[in-house]
Amino acid sequence: VSQTAYHRLETRMRRIGLVGEAAAVLHWDWSAIMPVGGADARAEQLAELKAISHGLLTDTETGELIEAATEDSSLDDWQRANLVLIRRNWVKASAVPEDLVVATAKACSECETVWRTARAEKDFAQVLPSLEKAFDLVMESGRAKAERLGLDLHDALLDDYEPGLRLAVIDPVFDDLAGWIPDFLDDVLARQSQAPEPLALEGPFPTAIQKQLGETLMAAVGFDFEGGRLDESLHPFCGGTPDDVRITTRYDEADFTSALMGVLHETGHAMYEAGLPKDWRRQSVGHSLGMSIHESQSLLIEMQVCRSRDFFEYAAPIMQDAFGGSGAAWSPENLYRLGTRVERGFIRVEADEVTYPAHVILRHRLEKALVSGDLKLADLPAAFDDAMENLLAIRPSDAALGVLQDIHWYAGVFGYFPTYTLGALTAAQFFQTATQADAAIVPGIRGGDFQPLIGWLRENIHAMGSRVSADELVEAVAGKALDPEVFKGHLRERYWGGAG
Amino acid sequence: VSQTAYHRLETRMRRIGLVGEAAAVLHWDWSAIMPVGGADARAEQLAELKAISHGLLTDTETGELIEAATEDSSLDDWQRANLVLIRRNWVKASAVPEDLVVATAKACSECETVWRTARAEKDFAQVLPSLEKAFDLVMESGRAKAERLGLDLHDALLDDYEPGLRLAVIDPVFDDLAGWIPDFLDDVLARQSQAPEPLALEGPFPTAIQKQLGETLMAAVGFDFEGGRLDESLHPFCGGTPDDVRITTRYDEADFTSALMGVLHETGHAMYEAGLPKDWRRQSVGHSLGMSIHESQSLLIEMQVCRSRDFFEYAAPIMQDAFGGSGAAWSPENLYRLGTRVERGFIRVEADEVTYPAHVILRHRLEKALVSGDLKLADLPAAFDDAMENLLAIRPSDAALGVLQDIHWYAGVFGYFPTYTLGALTAAQFFQTATQADAAIVPGIRGGDFQPLIGWLRENIHAMGSRVSADELVEAVAGKALDPEVFKGHLRERYWGGAG
Repeated sequence: VSQTAYHRLETRMRRIGLVGEAAAVLHWDWSAIMPVGGADARAEQLAELKAISHGLLTDTETGELIEAATEDSSLDDWQRANLVLIRRNWVKASAVPEDLVVATAKACSECETVWRTARAEKDFAQVLPSLEKAFDLVMESGRAKAERLGLDLHDALLDDYEPGLRLAVIDPVFDDLAGWIPDFLDDVLARQSQAPEPLALEGPFPTAIQKQLGETLMAAVGFDFEGGRLDESLHPFCGGTPDDVRITTRYDEADFTSALMGVLHETGHAMYEAGLPKDWRRQSVGHSLGMSIHESQSLLIEMQVCRSRDFFEYAAPIMQDAFGGSGAAWSPENLYRLGTRVERGFIRVEADEVTYPAHVILRHRLEKALVSGDLKLADLPAAFDDAMENLLAIRPSDAALGVLQDIHWYAGVFGYFPTYTLGALTAAQFFQTATQADAAIVPGIRGGDFQPLIGWLRENIHAMGSRVSADELVEAVAGKALDPEVFKGHLRERYWGGAG
Repeated sequence: VSQTAYHRLETRMRRIGLVGEAAAVLHWDWSAIMPVGGADARAEQLAELKAISHGLLTDTETGELIEAATEDSSLDDWQRANLVLIRRNWVKASAVPEDLVVATAKACSECETVWRTARAEKDFAQVLPSLEKAFDLVMESGRAKAERLGLDLHDALLDDYEPGLRLAVIDPVFDDLAGWIPDFLDDVLARQSQAPEPLALEGPFPTAIQKQLGETLMAAVGFDFEGGRLDESLHPFCGGTPDDVRITTRYDEADFTSALMGVLHETGHAMYEAGLPKDWRRQSVGHSLGMSIHESQSLLIEMQVCRSRDFFEYAAPIMQDAFGGSGAAWSPENLYRLGTRVERGFIRVEADEVTYPAHVILRHRLEKALVSGDLKLADLPAAFDDAMENLLAIRPSDAALGVLQDIHWYAGVFGYFPTYTLGALTAAQFFQTATQADAAIVPGIRGGDFQPLIGWLRENIHAMGSRVSADELVEAVAGKALDPEVFKGHLRERYWGGAG
């Protein structure tokens, strides 16, 4: 029997998917364990794989197969959804010539490499030329896609990280939060300072034990170590592939909670990847949705679950045992108070959930100014510091605490940051829905049984792949569109003790 | 200016080379750190990369470019040598249809995965069906190449691991050694038993310290840790890419010398890869020669250098310090005697250099019987045990000590084993030539300065890439063709104390 156009298209997507998986593992390797001398060659390898994928996706035959498959009335709903997504990816990819794809990938890889040193040396000037080159190429690609999709440049950038996401959606939500957070933060800090300080935990906390503890709690949540790993990297992330999910963290022997909460955060990402529908592996419809939904899964696990009183009831004795701690500092209530401590800090990845949106909003606003041309990259460090002072009332004393702290821009990633806060809002809605739907979820967390929660996430979110869009998913799961009030309610409940 | 056919061919080879580098890193990852659940997906990723390389190498345009480049009279010697090698690879690759390439790669990956469990459980029957499938596909590919090249099947298999290598070269040398070794071995063991036993080293030897010691000695030999790593894997190997060479070992806390000598062996491979001509990176002429020459580099470092009295003069105090040892057991002379202990053992990778050729010869003879069809895979375990009893007068008590011990056959690798012993012969000739050419080499080793030796290897061997063939290189470097008498002379010198 000869294959239908649709099935030949699936075969082609499978090839592209496999090349993408190879690239994902190489990227993980680079970030986690590659010796520094391998960087140039690795950048070339990744650029070549990108060129190959791009070639497979954009060649004439792909377009012909898409056209022919669109006429095929025998497709079921999943197949049809898959076809729509393939067409969308094909349109976007076809907008960018292969030379530009390769040049952009290489410039971003090179910039990322320079950033690693620049960050260690707190020296933005060192990375500026590479950043300018990468930025220009990313904008050139973005403009090409924007033109083909009939979008503004910034919307085309956003669309790469969350299909369908637009400035018109983000800006009102962020303006609302930016107006609300400063006063709420003042209130929270005032209440916090009136209460007795939580007891400090006495370190040091050896890295090996932190890692073991992380693995114990990952396994408890449901991470399968036969299908993934935990390693170290400068910038914690979740990489690899759905069948081999690799998360990373960085350890500080003076404080174990930062790495541990980071590990649990990445575990949320990992559970999503591992839970994607196997039958649609390497097809567009079988991939995870955009980064807002991805971030909702990590923040649901970290913020909604693992910083709750219920979680510390379960985890406090395990933490205490791991480090051989003793005394009242290790009580669930004290650990909960430490884990929900609010502070005006410099580092986004270490921020509490109250100040976190401010970190995102300031970056989003800087991206808007960069993309529109109102801000030059050379002026970014000062603009970054000003924006932080404006929203958080603190000013970084060096670039590692400021503009150099995050990898994103130096990896050519512009338009990604908003998804963190959209994810936080989505997480609040999903968790509210889940706990209302299944009364066993909260007692499960308190007793260390995460199966009810993970089962609900698997069924309602992970197994859906990209069958529906992010906004359709929120609507279908939570019964209403994205709503910042649920997130605010969660913050009031947790940080005002339900009083506000 | 439009590119010449030759330069377009170079561009194409560069693409193929980059895909090959990606595959090399993925293969290292698989062998060293991949969680078991990733195996199926990884097998598919590697098969896809192989299909892509194969497609690039065999498509019509490659053939046309080769034809056109052959007419180009402006090529220099390196370019012309490159072109000859590209043509040879193209002819071989074109002989095998892509379907068969993919099917073979997947069958071999699957078989390798099953072998890992079968070996742990000492159960050959478990892996037999996968092995039969992989073997049949490897032979089918081999027959296709043999036909195109006008070679016998076995010669076509050998050609994949050492271009130009033929049964007619191997068999007389191996028959000579197989006739010489048993009596020589009896003699050596008799002399050894008459002398006092060397003093045993008291363990345990913690893995972390073994690793540190390995890294210290790797660095002393010249390994650059900015361009490579040392890790653990079930079967020690040297993988990665020339700019990021990755060697692996396995540790035994009761005996540090096995892992350490393994590390130094792989360091020899790594130095070769790292020393290949950068200007010809990813071109056929810039790759290492066949596995005989590769093995000559590892055995030169391990056997000729690191098991010599001169080396132990330098390394004994470092080893003693590392483990906090004391007493006469840690003297250079005692460590040398331990390091040159001869024994009839089961495990090839732990064999001394006197018995090693017997391990290789028995495998080569079994391969001949398998390839000719005289031996069935189902009968391989018994045939393996018989052959070992015949050549080494010992019989394995289980399959892990016998037929399951090595990865090669289970990874679809048939025709590789002879290169180990050809490498040992070549190493003896190269080291003899080197020490005659530069009087600073031996005192350097005794004092921990490996620069004279490595400099000589770089210039005379590594930097040559594949500019000349293996036999031309031996002839050019050593002044005469491969000669087993030099190897025998080395063994007599070391194990008879120069008396025989």
